[in-house]
Amino acid sequence: MATTNRQILLKSRPAAAPTAANFELVETPVPEPRDGEVLLRTLYLSLDPYMRGRMSAGPSYAAPAEVGQPMVGGTVSEVAASRHPGFAKGDIVSSYVGWQDYAVSNGAGLTKLDPKMVKPISLALGLLGMPGMTAYAGLMEIGQPKPGETVVVSAASGAVGSVVGQLAKLKGCRAVGVAGGPEKCKFVVDTLGFDACVDHKGDNLRERIAEACPKGIDVYFENVGGATQRALWPLLNNFSRVAVCGMIASYNDPAPQPGPDLRTVLVKRMTVRGFIVTELWPKYPNAFGELADWYHQGKIKYREDVVEGLEKAPEAFLGLLQGKNFGKLAVKVG
Amino acid sequence: MATTNRQILLKSRPAAAPTAANFELVETPVPEPRDGEVLLRTLYLSLDPYMRGRMSAGPSYAAPAEVGQPMVGGTVSEVAASRHPGFAKGDIVSSYVGWQDYAVSNGAGLTKLDPKMVKPISLALGLLGMPGMTAYAGLMEIGQPKPGETVVVSAASGAVGSVVGQLAKLKGCRAVGVAGGPEKCKFVVDTLGFDACVDHKGDNLRERIAEACPKGIDVYFENVGGATQRALWPLLNNFSRVAVCGMIASYNDPAPQPGPDLRTVLVKRMTVRGFIVTELWPKYPNAFGELADWYHQGKIKYREDVVEGLEKAPEAFLGLLQGKNFGKLAVKVG
Repeated sequence: MATTNRQILLKSRPAAAPTAANFELVETPVPEPRDGEVLLRTLYLSLDPYMRGRMSAGPSYAAPAEVGQPMVGGTVSEVAASRHPGFAKGDIVSSYVGWQDYAVSNGAGLTKLDPKMVKPISLALGLLGMPGMTAYAGLMEIGQPKPGETVVVSAASGAVGSVVGQLAKLKGCRAVGVAGGPEKCKFVVDTLGFDACVDHKGDNLRERIAEACPKGIDVYFENVGGATQRALWPLLNNFSRVAVCGMIASYNDPAPQPGPDLRTVLVKRMTVRGFIVTELWPKYPNAFGELADWYHQGKIKYREDVVEGLEKAPEAFLGLLQGKNFGKLAVKVG
Repeated sequence: MATTNRQILLKSRPAAAPTAANFELVETPVPEPRDGEVLLRTLYLSLDPYMRGRMSAGPSYAAPAEVGQPMVGGTVSEVAASRHPGFAKGDIVSSYVGWQDYAVSNGAGLTKLDPKMVKPISLALGLLGMPGMTAYAGLMEIGQPKPGETVVVSAASGAVGSVVGQLAKLKGCRAVGVAGGPEKCKFVVDTLGFDACVDHKGDNLRERIAEACPKGIDVYFENVGGATQRALWPLLNNFSRVAVCGMIASYNDPAPQPGPDLRTVLVKRMTVRGFIVTELWPKYPNAFGELADWYHQGKIKYREDVVEGLEKAPEAFLGLLQGKNFGKLAVKVG
């Protein structure tokens, strides 16, 4: 059994775009579980855009990561040793121990995973975890998609967006993605089954989105903000709903930036609502089972982008903020 | 009986701020009602900010007024002659015949008013009409005020805002107004009973609103947009609701202007929703009776700013767009 625990610490807070210098890999002894605790060995670490927010000290919906401590993050772990009556060595759990090989836990927040249902087990960080629940709860609660409506989602090949569009199709909607580059757009249409996907990297973005949405946009699931948001705002229909899930294009802005015109919100009687998955998903207790069933029936596809080795986490995370990943980004740690 | 009908026509569409030259007073013969019609004599004409939108041809939630036709507008009318079985000479009705002395109607959209309940009868254009229902439905449906919360409303001495704040007080909230000038602010606090009112004409608007809202803002009822909106946006609390009712500060902008930061909407899980009163008020069938009761019990005060003479309508309307009115603006026509 290993005695060294690699940890990636938040070394400093970025003023704008983070760099590798904001992280530091250190080696510490593997911690010892006490009575009532388990030792967790990280199998997979999830990398998600929200982590950019945790790197900053500004007010947000969650406390920032602490400088000098391991970066926070969702994980799938194996119980390597247990002194807790509820867990046995070899159990696989979803956990939130951050960017490190090992951690001890008193069991709070751990959920045992059934490897037969969550297969591959990394799905617990994607379709059958926070990103999948984000897509499900945000689309249903705020988007309220109705058959025949048009649903647009940005970052459409990603961890959340890919699920949003497929759920919209299952609800009888026209699903239109916005993604970066022809390869991702081809995947969104050919593999995920969206009706159309628009490459945000070209010219005339508004015109191309309009072409893909001949009846306008009824639901916009916002993952990015920035140019995509500005391009499609005038295409939103009366009574449209905008679920504000992420604003990755503005996470590095040091101060709030101007946003969309409120007069449009008034004239079109729109609803624009921000949400955090953990506050919505308790309203959808069947979502996990439905997503799992649809996945195993082949009705929902899910692409993962798995990087090997904890030491690669900073580089992979910085790439995520630039859209370099292709599918749900995770790190295979152990 | 008069034989001349004065009409104020929309002569031309303004490119930016409207002027008196966009209107034209003409004299035409009083129309003759046919079988199934009534002749209406205008008693009061309502002047409201939404009329600025009707002067423009751009897409909106209602068709624009036609150039060469009387300006549109809500009215209280007396039935001057009736060939309609449902109306008798002398009936008082709420109507929508626009800026003119006389009009014929087939009865569609007319509502008989009980002068004992709607007293003074001009209240049918204010507290007990569209503005009052706007305040009631928008605050209840979108604002969802809870006891102890802080509700801020702009244009707080006006036709809608004055009702919003008093309803907020009746719901157990802290009510804070924003209005233009010390006289209006004094009225909002001393007469209407708001907890505080901030003059948007001074410096340090954000700081002064923050002082008036020590627990932040839970509900913002938006009537103006512009500098007031920008000043208070950072003061909105987690889970706050913004009811977008009017954007008078931007009605003359030829193109949409940047609005508030969506990252704030996300991080604070806010809901921002635009609405049009006619689409919400059917959900509140008791509102009219409640507002009437509260008014007659002295629990809601309502200030009217009544201008004498149809020919004064353009000047009064242009003043409304600049905040020169003090209370619900109406024209006594007949």
